[in-house]
Formats: sequence, C-alpha cells, structure tokens
Amino acid sequence: MSSVPSQASHADLDARLAQNAAAVETLLESLLSETPAAGEILRPPRLVAAMRHGALAGGKRLRPFLTVETARLLGVPSAQALRAGAAVELLHCYSLVHDDLPAMDDDDLRRGRPTVHKAYDEATAILAGDALLTLAFDVLADPETHESGEIRVALVRCLARASGLGGMVGGQMLDLAAEGRFEAQKHALTEAEIRRLQAMKTGALLAASVEIGARLGGADAAALTALDAYGRALGATFQIADDILDVEADAAQMGKATAKDEDKGKATLIGVLGLDGAKRERDRLSEAAVKALDGFGSAADALRAAARFAAQRKS
Amino acid sequence: MSSVPSQASHADLDARLAQNAAAVETLLESLLSETPAAGEILRPPRLVAAMRHGALAGGKRLRPFLTVETARLLGVPSAQALRAGAAVELLHCYSLVHDDLPAMDDDDLRRGRPTVHKAYDEATAILAGDALLTLAFDVLADPETHESGEIRVALVRCLARASGLGGMVGGQMLDLAAEGRFEAQKHALTEAEIRRLQAMKTGALLAASVEIGARLGGADAAALTALDAYGRALGATFQIADDILDVEADAAQMGKATAKDEDKGKATLIGVLGLDGAKRERDRLSEAAVKALDGFGSAADALRAAARFAAQRKS
Repeated sequence: MSSVPSQASHADLDARLAQNAAAVETLLESLLSETPAAGEILRPPRLVAAMRHGALAGGKRLRPFLTVETARLLGVPSAQALRAGAAVELLHCYSLVHDDLPAMDDDDLRRGRPTVHKAYDEATAILAGDALLTLAFDVLADPETHESGEIRVALVRCLARASGLGGMVGGQMLDLAAEGRFEAQKHALTEAEIRRLQAMKTGALLAASVEIGARLGGADAAALTALDAYGRALGATFQIADDILDVEADAAQMGKATAKDEDKGKATLIGVLGLDGAKRERDRLSEAAVKALDGFGSAADALRAAARFAAQRKS
Repeated sequence: MSSVPSQASHADLDARLAQNAAAVETLLESLLSETPAAGEILRPPRLVAAMRHGALAGGKRLRPFLTVETARLLGVPSAQALRAGAAVELLHCYSLVHDDLPAMDDDDLRRGRPTVHKAYDEATAILAGDALLTLAFDVLADPETHESGEIRVALVRCLARASGLGGMVGGQMLDLAAEGRFEAQKHALTEAEIRRLQAMKTGALLAASVEIGARLGGADAAALTALDAYGRALGATFQIADDILDVEADAAQMGKATAKDEDKGKATLIGVLGLDGAKRERDRLSEAAVKALDGFGSAADALRAAARFAAQRKS
C-alpha cells in the first residue's frame, strides 16, 4: 500500500533539501578554491575552473542529504557530517564529467549548460574528473572532519568499494556493454542482469551515501543492516523513477513514446516490466525503503520523505 | 663531487629491484582478480582485463621500491609495506593509462605493447584508469595492511594530496598548457616554472612513495624532513634524467638531436640549461638526494643506490 505523504512533509523535505544544498554548495566552493591546500604545490586555474564547472552546477545534492540526514538520525549534528557528504558529491560529480565524455555517453549539455568537455576541452575534462575523484578521498581523509582515524579510513573504504570496479565504475562498464559497444551482436539483458547493473551504476553510491552517514553516527550492526536495506531500496527506486521520467518526458515533448535511453540501447526495467509494471515496481521499492526504517522513530521522517520523493519526483 | 658507485652496489640494487618487482607483480595480480572483494557486486571481466593490461605490464616498480625501502630503513619488514607500495603503483599506472589517451598524449604504444585504449577502446581505458585510481585508495584504506586507522588514513591523505589537482594531475594540466594547447600564442616557461611543473607531474608521487614508507615506519619530524628532501631531489633527478635520455635516444636512433618531447613542445630543463648543463644538474640533484640521507647509516644504502640509479639509468 503506497501511503500518500501529506503536503506538510513535502514542504518540509523541500526546505531541508534546499538548506542542505546551500550548505553543500558553500563547502564545495571553499574546497574548490585556487589556493593550494597543505602539501599541494599549485592549483592550475584552468583545472580549478573546469572542476568548479563540473561540481558547482547546482542540483538537489541528494547524496550529501542522505549522508547528513542518516548521521543526524544517529545524533550527529549536520555541520559535522557535511564534509563527508560533500566528498560523496565530489565523487558523483566526477562520474558525471567522465560519463559525458565523447568516448562515453557523448553529451553536450547537462542541466542546460555545456558539459565540461564542451565548455573546456576533452583533456581538461578527463583531468578535472580525475582531480574531483582524488579530492573526494582527500576530503574524507582530512582531519578537518574531526573524526578519528578509524572512522575516516572506514569512510574512505566504503566510498572506494562503492565507486570502483565492483561498484559504480563497473556498472558504467556493464551499461556500455549492454549498448552493444563491444560485440557485433547485441545481447539483451535479463531482468536480474538489469537490476544488478543498476545496483552497481547508481545504487551503490546512493547506498554508500547512507552507509557513510551511518558510520559517522557509530551505527551498531542492526542499524547498519536496516540502513543498508533502506539505501539499496532507495537507490533502486531512484533509478527506475529516472527511467520512467525519461520515457514520459520524451513522450510528452516529442509526441512519441520512444525514449532517449531506448534509442541508445540503454538497459532499463521498463523494457522487461512495461511502463505500468515499472511504476508499480518503483512504488514497491519506495515503500520497501520506508519499511526498512520501521525501527527508527520520527527522527527518520526526512529519510522516509526522501524515499517517497525519489519515486514521485518530476525532474 | 659525484662519487662513483661500486659494481657491487649496482648488482645489489638490481637484485633488490628485481625481487621487489616480482613481489609487487604477484600482489597486483591478486588485487586485480575477477573475484569481487567484500562490498563489491561484480567485477566486469572486460574492465578487469583492461586494468590488468595497464597495471601488469612489468617495469621497474620504482615507486613501491621506494616505499618498501624507506619503511625497511625504519624497521618495517618489506612484506608489511608491500600493500602500500602496490597502492602507489596502481595510482602511477592509472596516470599512464589516462596520459596515453587520444585527447591527452595520444600514444599507441607503451613498453612496446599497445596502450590500453588501443588494446581495448577509449571508453574502457577511461574507466580502467578511474578504477585503478579508486583501487589505490581502497588498498591503502584496507585493514588487511594491519596498520592502525590513524596510519592508514594518513597514507590516503598523503597519496591524495600528491596526486590530485595540486600535485600530479595539476602537473599534467600545466604540461598540456605548456604545449600551447589552450592558447593561440605559446608561452615559453621560465626555469622556475619548468621546475615547478616537474615537481608536480612526476616529483610529487615519487616523494609521496618515500613519505608513505616513512609514515609506515613512524618516522619522527626530523626523519620525515630528511626523507622528504631525499624524495623531492630524487623526483627531480628522475625527471631530468628522463628528459636527457629522450634527447639522446632520439639523437642516436634518428641521427639528429631533435627530441620527441621538444617536437611536442614539452617543457624540459634541457631547453634552458643545455644538454651539458642538464647533465650537471641531474648529477647535482642525485648527490643532493644521497646527501639528504647522511643522518641514516648503511641501512639507507639501497635508497642511496636508487638516487644514483635514477641519474645513471639507460632506459
């Protein structure tokens, strides 16, 4: 049963998202200054500008929101979790810069602005992505977070596992393979293969955003398990909602039901479940995410609202 | 005064380098297996194969050698420092994979084998580089190293600072700029600018290889300062020797003194100091590296030999 969130919880989530996004933006601004940090020699202005172009483009900042809200649920003040959240966002931004490259998805625009390789050039975009990825680990490892070394290194490991060859990067690789890039004969993925691909490509980093918040809050094994279930269900909700939005936006804007993703041969669950089946699956996953938080009280309302938002968002 | 190393120390260094390279190769083999690590979902075979192509191509493995030998100087057994050394090597290998890309240096061959984007394709090479970079931090953060969280997180931070926008990646950016990529009018670099570029592009990671060994060994402030001076002088020696080798190889092979780097407009100190001046500077830097180790006894002989090797190597 999908429960309808009240107008109030929507408004409350919007306000919290906006407040968090502003705080993330301010912190990213300062992390991406031209002034070298201790141990650095010089930050080349063109590289810094390209990194800023890729990281300061606005957006909902959902991943740091998840980190901050999960940490807050476990008693960690928002300000204390913000740096770890910003690290996850830097990693997300690097993945967008590299995914947009001509050799990858070859996108000229993102959020209505030129992508980094269009605004600068391809070499600069590759290096800007590399530097954003490296900076993410630098920020997590920095004693500025005031966390112990044991906690900081656990966060580094969590982010590395979620984003590397067995997580996000591996998922992007599977996605390119599903487009038929590497074979003469395109191989249609099974439902299980699509779910796994999406769990890697987008799910792993969303789940890591939650896990990093949980580890900052010193979650015990039971809380880690519940929050992990929440993060994975939320990640799957997010991806299927994205695929549905893509189909419906194309249908509305172009007067036809052919999706951009479908044109590109991207693997989505819509092809397997149909549009209506995909919507039911999206709502089921969103409610599973909410259900995973049953052991937490009203302090988890923001995370519950985020799971419903992931299913119902319009952009 | 440049002291001539005995035949014995050369042979000893060669043996130690070979022994270390074999141990690094074995460890990288196991880190780059197709079996997912804990927290990973699946390692796509094509991605793993491309990463292995980029990381298991042999070579001297100088960076892990510096990490292991510095740690050994401070009483840490080689086996215990090997994982941290392998992490530095993974990071070095990622930088080669990305530097070879068409949008960057556009190289088809490395060590006589096709580069990763030639053996596979450009998208796979970008992702393989991203995954090698991420794996480097994963390996440093892994409790498998048996180091405390405080130590592991210090190593992560050292590697991130040395390789990010204010270190290696920033240096690569400056190098592309020095080729005149981003300006209609090429701007000739001053000697100070060339030294800074090289300190970032190659020096920072070599110095970090030493610093990581020093931190594994719990070096005190005085030892850290001495080893840092050693690492920086060694890095500068290595780069200038590389530039000299490039000029002399071209002169020998092509019957003319025009270097490949000069053709590409790469900034080297030879253009400023001349070939003979560059050789004197190379030897001066190598001796400065040896001199920085004066406070250490014969246990530092391998590091001294490495500094002389960096100046005198023929390939």
